[in-house]
Amino acid sequence: MRVQGVSYRTVWMDRGVVNMIDQRALPFHFAIVSLPTYRDTAEAIRDMTVRGAGVIGVAAGYAMAQAVLEAPPASFDDAMATAESVLRATRPTAQNLFYAIERMRASLSGCRDAAQRRAQAVACAQAIADEDAAAGEAIGMCGQAILGASATVITHCNAGWLAFADWGTALAPIYQAHREGKRIHVYATETRPRSQGAKLTAWELAQEGVPCTIIPDTAAGSVIRRGLITCVIVGADRIAANGDVANKIGTYPLAVLAQTHRVPFYVAAPTTTIDLACATGDAIPIEERSEEEVLWVTGLTADGRLERVRIAAADARARNWAFDVTPASLITALITNRGIIAAEPRAIRDIMRAHPSGVTALIP
Amino acid sequence: MRVQGVSYRTVWMDRGVVNMIDQRALPFHFAIVSLPTYRDTAEAIRDMTVRGAGVIGVAAGYAMAQAVLEAPPASFDDAMATAESVLRATRPTAQNLFYAIERMRASLSGCRDAAQRRAQAVACAQAIADEDAAAGEAIGMCGQAILGASATVITHCNAGWLAFADWGTALAPIYQAHREGKRIHVYATETRPRSQGAKLTAWELAQEGVPCTIIPDTAAGSVIRRGLITCVIVGADRIAANGDVANKIGTYPLAVLAQTHRVPFYVAAPTTTIDLACATGDAIPIEERSEEEVLWVTGLTADGRLERVRIAAADARARNWAFDVTPASLITALITNRGIIAAEPRAIRDIMRAHPSGVTALIP
Repeated sequence: MRVQGVSYRTVWMDRGVVNMIDQRALPFHFAIVSLPTYRDTAEAIRDMTVRGAGVIGVAAGYAMAQAVLEAPPASFDDAMATAESVLRATRPTAQNLFYAIERMRASLSGCRDAAQRRAQAVACAQAIADEDAAAGEAIGMCGQAILGASATVITHCNAGWLAFADWGTALAPIYQAHREGKRIHVYATETRPRSQGAKLTAWELAQEGVPCTIIPDTAAGSVIRRGLITCVIVGADRIAANGDVANKIGTYPLAVLAQTHRVPFYVAAPTTTIDLACATGDAIPIEERSEEEVLWVTGLTADGRLERVRIAAADARARNWAFDVTPASLITALITNRGIIAAEPRAIRDIMRAHPSGVTALIP
Repeated sequence: MRVQGVSYRTVWMDRGVVNMIDQRALPFHFAIVSLPTYRDTAEAIRDMTVRGAGVIGVAAGYAMAQAVLEAPPASFDDAMATAESVLRATRPTAQNLFYAIERMRASLSGCRDAAQRRAQAVACAQAIADEDAAAGEAIGMCGQAILGASATVITHCNAGWLAFADWGTALAPIYQAHREGKRIHVYATETRPRSQGAKLTAWELAQEGVPCTIIPDTAAGSVIRRGLITCVIVGADRIAANGDVANKIGTYPLAVLAQTHRVPFYVAAPTTTIDLACATGDAIPIEERSEEEVLWVTGLTADGRLERVRIAAADARARNWAFDVTPASLITALITNRGIIAAEPRAIRDIMRAHPSGVTALIP
């Protein structure tokens, strides 16, 4: 992805230092934070300097590599156990965090000495990042085929490159199509309570020159009913074995509206998001977050200060489910890094069986 | 309605001075503004010190009465023509504004002298306010019958007493049921972009002691799908002759979700909201407002200052349709001041024919 014409990844490591785009400041300030130790990187995951399904795993992989570089050889195992527990506590519900930690640990198990461990840790963390970016690129290549010479797409929340090392999921087909000269217009739903659509997706798309219109979440029904929309593309936080999808709260209403108006509804995700251990969406735990996110809004004042304002009375109460579940029956297709498949058990089983390692493979 | 235990109307006139609750400051500060001249009252309508379908008409009626009280007898007609044009320009799409202006003018046409005009103007403006409040009370009496001994209701935007002289529409059945001892819980959708659900509805309900939970607009689908909801009750800005309803943006998606999950979907409105001149919802003009409302949020900072913050990049663009149209086929029933009727042409024609004057009558 490009920012002001320069290519970036969301997170990267350079000589033991982890660098990341500070998402807390976006879209108001573009800043890179440099994190010299694994504890700094863990804190950046915890305080949401970086957020998004894929990139949390990438950052966690790099943090594990930092821990290996920092660990005294005499007490290596203790140091790594501490690092793991620090990282696990940062975002306890983030699936990719645990995937990255487990994979880093497994990759280190065969190493004989400190030098080999260091080299292996850096290589494995880099592989996690590269695979994440490659999966996004593959999703883009597969997914752009669903977009004709001109298309108007609704997306929800941010499933773009900021949520991954690069490319993203829902936005990857849009970026590929745009680069191929297709005329793509995106309606980005604001995505309350955290407004990632207005804050992150609109900003990302602007960097790539893709025309984007922000709409309140309340307006999606009107935009679809007016016939303005070619298709809906969203990301996924977890996909059950039967094709049900957990994604950012507000995804399910979009799917219902899309079906009502016969607008195709696509879910874009790498195969690593598929959880065969979850039979259906009912088995996916839905995180409930603090009501503060609903009752307060953060933005930039007219004189350029980042400020938090309360939008309800002091004694008002709110509920804040972070995700909802969209049943497979409402999903036109899953756009994965291994191709576009139906959201149904056999197709999901087949695509997972073809690459049982779970490692992302670029489509030919 | 009560505020901190004291009975209020949203707008009232006392010895030529119009008083109103300052809705711009709610829910953070409860303040009454006093407006000594019709130009002050007109400005309060324009700057949204007062907002809401019914109460704009009530305020306009009082403003016309103030204009009559202020007009020099020698140039009465010129003064009133000026006052009318000032008022018409305040909120050019508000149906009730024009209704009140026309009704005030008609009521003055038979007056012979200045004293009679003054008395008539004050009486007519008061009648508009009283009828508005009576319609809300009647809607509450009719509508509470749909609520059992305990019920959980979703409402959208603010169709409570703040939008009318008293009682409101969508909230009136809830207030009546609550006073009768029924256990009612309300989920108030935030209603971006202006967040009237979070700011006004939650505050109103708290004043009456009705339990209320604010949810982001994105969460309505989850709440309905989880089976938490007994019914949806919303207000209306205009009802077409065939039963299609224009209401705050975000109403249509709620109606689609309600139908998907077989949850009853009610629209509460006085018969004055029915526009027989509109054959269907397609004929209802949909106001598009400034994108600033989407891109900025106003709230209270932690240290108690009212502040406006931008939630998107400086160059981001947005669309802001204020209303959407819900087709009659999705509406379980209309709750009116003359009873509960089907949202279909014959029932609407019959209820309007029964009282062709358009004047609100309390049900027996």
